[in-house]
Amino acid sequence: MPTDTFKMLAEYLDSNVLVKLKGGKLIKGTLKSYDQHLNLILADAEELDEKEPRSLGTILVRGDNVVLISPAPK
Amino acid sequence: MPTDTFKMLAEYLDSNVLVKLKGGKLIKGTLKSYDQHLNLILADAEELDEKEPRSLGTILVRGDNVVLISPAPK
Amino acid sequence: MPTDTFKMLAEYLDSNVLVKLKGGKLIKGTLKSYDQHLNLILADAEELDEKEPRSLGTILVRGDNVVLISPAPK
Amino acid sequence: MPTDTFKMLAEYLDSNVLVKLKGGKLIKGTLKSYDQHLNLILADAEELDEKEPRSLGTILVRGDNVVLISPAPK
Amino acid sequence: MPTDTFKMLAEYLDSNVLVKLKGGKLIKGTLKSYDQHLNLILADAEELDEKEPRSLGTILVRGDNVVLISPAPK
Amino acid sequence: MPTDTFKMLAEYLDSNVLVKLKGGKLIKGTLKSYDQHLNLILADAEELDEKEPRSLGTILVRGDNVVLISPAPK
Amino acid sequence: MPTDTFKMLAEYLDSNVLVKLKGGKLIKGTLKSYDQHLNLILADAEELDEKEPRSLGTILVRGDNVVLISPAPK
Repeated sequence: MPTDTFKMLAEYLDSNVLVKLKGGKLIKGTLKSYDQHLNLILADAEELDEKEPRSLGTILVRGDNVVLISPAPK
Repeated sequence: MPTDTFKMLAEYLDSNVLVKLKGGKLIKGTLKSYDQHLNLILADAEELDEKEPRSLGTILVRGDNVVLISPAPK
Repeated sequence: MPTDTFKMLAEYLDSNVLVKLKGGKLIKGTLKSYDQHLNLILADAEELDEKEPRSLGTILVRGDNVVLISPAPK
Repeated sequence: MPTDTFKMLAEYLDSNVLVKLKGGKLIKGTLKSYDQHLNLILADAEELDEKEPRSLGTILVRGDNVVLISPAPK
Repeated sequence: MPTDTFKMLAEYLDSNVLVKLKGGKLIKGTLKSYDQHLNLILADAEELDEKEPRSLGTILVRGDNVVLISPAPK
Repeated sequence: MPTDTFKMLAEYLDSNVLVKLKGGKLIKGTLKSYDQHLNLILADAEELDEKEPRSLGTILVRGDNVVLISPAPK
Repeated sequence: MPTDTFKMLAEYLDSNVLVKLKGGKLIKGTLKSYDQHLNLILADAEELDEKEPRSLGTILVRGDNVVLISPAPK
């Protein structure tokens, strides 16, 4: 069984990612850290599902809320 | 007890798969990696449940959101 | 405590089963493999809850979605 | 701490039980096997929440769906 | 850290308890056994949320459905 | 990593606490015991979300229902 | 794999944080302690989703309710 599922996240360190959360919330930020539960540290994080993106600063997202992580469009 | 549940996924590596998520969302992409939690790496991923498929790039899907994985129709 | 809960599944290998999923979805297919989490491989799988059954091919069902597994009526 | 929670189930082996599932579904069948997760094998199983009971044959119920198990009324 | 959380349950053995389940269902019965998951055996169990209490006999309640356990009012 | 999360609970032993449960239910009682799952024993417990507080006696709350624990206002 | 997910929390000790909970509730308080489950101790905690913030005192938040933690705006 391949075990490099997290290799992608390693490549995304210090770049902008979109994180879709359970319930539909969408967060954008710079990926600074992660662990095997997919707990994430995002710098310059913003909630995108409000009419206007809301700045959150450096946040910790608890991994069990994560649905998927994708690169942020430029 | 057979323990080759993941053999199917090994055969689907580098081919197109459909991933049905809890809540009904449908993702299509090229399976690049997986682990025993069914965390998945999908390249050229697209959300299919929007009116028009939305390109997501290379994504990580957290395994506990997965309902089922099937081969993508050609 | 009896520990042969999975003996039934062993007997159902290579025969047609119905799998009821959380949320009510019903899948029919040939049981090819399973593990202790009830992750299932089903060949020639079909979704039966659509008006017309939809062919899915060989699929993996993540075990935590499974409610019950029964033999498919002939 | 008493650890004989499952002794009741041992006494119910080969007799008729009612199994109430999360979401309210009610299954009746002959208890043939169980394990510590409350995965159950029921023979001659029937869904009782339909207008007419629907025969299911010998089924496996995934334990995490179980709310409670009671003896079936004669 | 105190570790006698279950001491209360030991004192309630063979006496009448009320068990509130997730979703609001209320069960009354004589506590005969429990384990560390809060799987419970209740004798002379009754569902109290119906118009008329419904007799269930000796039942097993799967622990993850339990919200709280209190002594039954006399 | 600090590991004294439970030190606060130790300080609240034998004093009145409010426990907010998933789904919004609010319980008040004297904290008599807890464990690492946040299973709680509360003496003189009352449900506060009814029009009139309802006395429950000495109860066990299963930890996975707990959202937060705060000191009860005097 | 980086394992310093919690380093951010260490830096936020004794400063004001916002904690978003599942279901949308928003709590503000001074982070006094945390553990690997994200159980949190917050001093001078307030619920912000009521019309008027409600003071809670020093509280314990059970980690599995946490969606994300961000610094509180000054």
